[in-house]
Amino acid sequence: MEFKSKIKTIEWIDNYSKMVDQTVVPYEYKFINVTTGDNMFHAIRDMIVRGAPAIGIAGAHGVVLYAQEGRDKFTNIEDFKIWLIDKAEYMKTSRPTAVNLMWACEKQIEIIRDSKSDINGLIEELKQNAIKLENEDIEINKKIGDYGAEVVPKGATILTHCNAGALATVGYGTALGVVRSAYAKDNTIQVFADETRPRQQGARITTFELAMDGIPVTLITDGMCSYFMSKGMIDMVVVGADRIAANGDTANKIGTYTVAIAAKYHNIPFYIAAPLSTIDTSIASGKDIPIEERSHEEVTHINGKRICAEGVKIINPGFDVTPHELIAGIITEKGILKPDYNKSISEAFKG
Amino acid sequence: MEFKSKIKTIEWIDNYSKMVDQTVVPYEYKFINVTTGDNMFHAIRDMIVRGAPAIGIAGAHGVVLYAQEGRDKFTNIEDFKIWLIDKAEYMKTSRPTAVNLMWACEKQIEIIRDSKSDINGLIEELKQNAIKLENEDIEINKKIGDYGAEVVPKGATILTHCNAGALATVGYGTALGVVRSAYAKDNTIQVFADETRPRQQGARITTFELAMDGIPVTLITDGMCSYFMSKGMIDMVVVGADRIAANGDTANKIGTYTVAIAAKYHNIPFYIAAPLSTIDTSIASGKDIPIEERSHEEVTHINGKRICAEGVKIINPGFDVTPHELIAGIITEKGILKPDYNKSISEAFKG
Repeated sequence: MEFKSKIKTIEWIDNYSKMVDQTVVPYEYKFINVTTGDNMFHAIRDMIVRGAPAIGIAGAHGVVLYAQEGRDKFTNIEDFKIWLIDKAEYMKTSRPTAVNLMWACEKQIEIIRDSKSDINGLIEELKQNAIKLENEDIEINKKIGDYGAEVVPKGATILTHCNAGALATVGYGTALGVVRSAYAKDNTIQVFADETRPRQQGARITTFELAMDGIPVTLITDGMCSYFMSKGMIDMVVVGADRIAANGDTANKIGTYTVAIAAKYHNIPFYIAAPLSTIDTSIASGKDIPIEERSHEEVTHINGKRICAEGVKIINPGFDVTPHELIAGIITEKGILKPDYNKSISEAFKG
Repeated sequence: MEFKSKIKTIEWIDNYSKMVDQTVVPYEYKFINVTTGDNMFHAIRDMIVRGAPAIGIAGAHGVVLYAQEGRDKFTNIEDFKIWLIDKAEYMKTSRPTAVNLMWACEKQIEIIRDSKSDINGLIEELKQNAIKLENEDIEINKKIGDYGAEVVPKGATILTHCNAGALATVGYGTALGVVRSAYAKDNTIQVFADETRPRQQGARITTFELAMDGIPVTLITDGMCSYFMSKGMIDMVVVGADRIAANGDTANKIGTYTVAIAAKYHNIPFYIAAPLSTIDTSIASGKDIPIEERSHEEVTHINGKRICAEGVKIINPGFDVTPHELIAGIITEKGILKPDYNKSISEAFKG
């Protein structure tokens, strides 16, 4: 039985990109239309759209938006291509850690480079490619979900951190794709969701999308995971990823590494769920993954209200790197990759 | 050189208890006067006063307040004693985990039992005992601070969780007593403070009291500790305690156990700082320490605003237990207790 999720996070409509505004979830569930490349850049940077696979698609849409804007500026296709590749390269810089953004923009750059069409034809090719990536994302997530569901024990409680759900992708989700596929087979499973400070994607987004799809979810604060693990109340951990190095080291939302250490201490399997497009084989290990430093207000303020004394110092890394030795498996659309990751990742890209 | 803290958290004045209202820190720094036993019960339960040593003193004050209320009700001293012991036992139930509350109320019950005075004389004895416990608390904290300072490396960054500071005690603090004594010797040390969701005592109270005393403090979210540990930016962890079992297992604010596991993984020493009155030798191990379950709103709401979807489930344990094998030492007023804790704790109580 296939799980039907109610959520479609981002979608190309005629000549613009329609997306859920994730900055107001769970207070509002509203869509905004992004109609220019620069607006897409800001939508990604300001996390109106977030989640590694979703911002990949957003980046691909953004290149189409720039292309549409260039239509009336250029007559020469080669000049148009040079200008548009420059815009696509700029789009890649809207956020630094999630490699899917670079991957999807690069897919569009390949189209631009290889196209034999005129300007209108190229724009149409880019649009069709964006829609293709969009559709593939859901198909890939369903495969990830189905592979992952095979390792979910009956009646399991699955802990997740941040949001690697339908709202982090086009739909269905990676880590929560595993949850959805498992729930379709066994509706006695449940989820524990870490709040995920500073931006609270677990509290705001994961609880929202699971509640919307009717999957039982318990919200816990980030420090509580070890307590519940020690009580035997967590059977497995599944999280998403923003970038995976060739050796399996995985950058994901800050706090993930702490959960992975706690899981190891309690002998609870800790899985990554991510498409192959999140794997950056050009990077040997996690130490080379760039970590985004985000604004101090994310730590000092919640919902616009200050939560700490004046005069404190802040460091706000958006991500941390979980070393491969803490990871039981990387659940991809090609199956669950196991250690040695250098080998299993390399084989997945060949296969 | 002795460190002078500006903070006095709770103090007996003539015939009432004056305390900092910790529910409004850091937005306001105001004092409230508690004038009845029932009001003290609520002040403890609602965390107007919090921190294991501080609620011990608050409990002792509360017994004096009840005694004052009984003065006009009774003529017979024995009837008065029976009634007052009952009130003192009730005061112990205002919160379940921190054993200092039970310890301080028990100290007052001993006075009640042993007193040869009339009603007015007994009330005076209870008042003098409360003031004595109050003064001893600061002296004990300074001893804890001085012993702890000996194991703080030069220029160290000390991570702490929740607030075991001047505002968790009468003054000076236990974990932050170590910080104050260390800072008096070496003003290049600094503190990293965990936010400590759900109630954010680290963000609200620890940053406030360290900023007030001019000690550098960086606020981090609870999930970040492992990231900074992996970067070599944390040299030691010092936290307080709510109850320590005979084998060294330590109940402290929820999230402490997660920090202890992360510290172990990175080979960073993790210390408990607490007076002997926090050690409950009647309990063999941490599994027998009662863990307070607090209201769901502490998790689902921050500053009155909901942070998650409707329909989520909540479990909100106020404390967790860090097993003794993760603890490098327990810093007390009798020196730093080391493993085997059954032995070192037993010796500390004899000495």
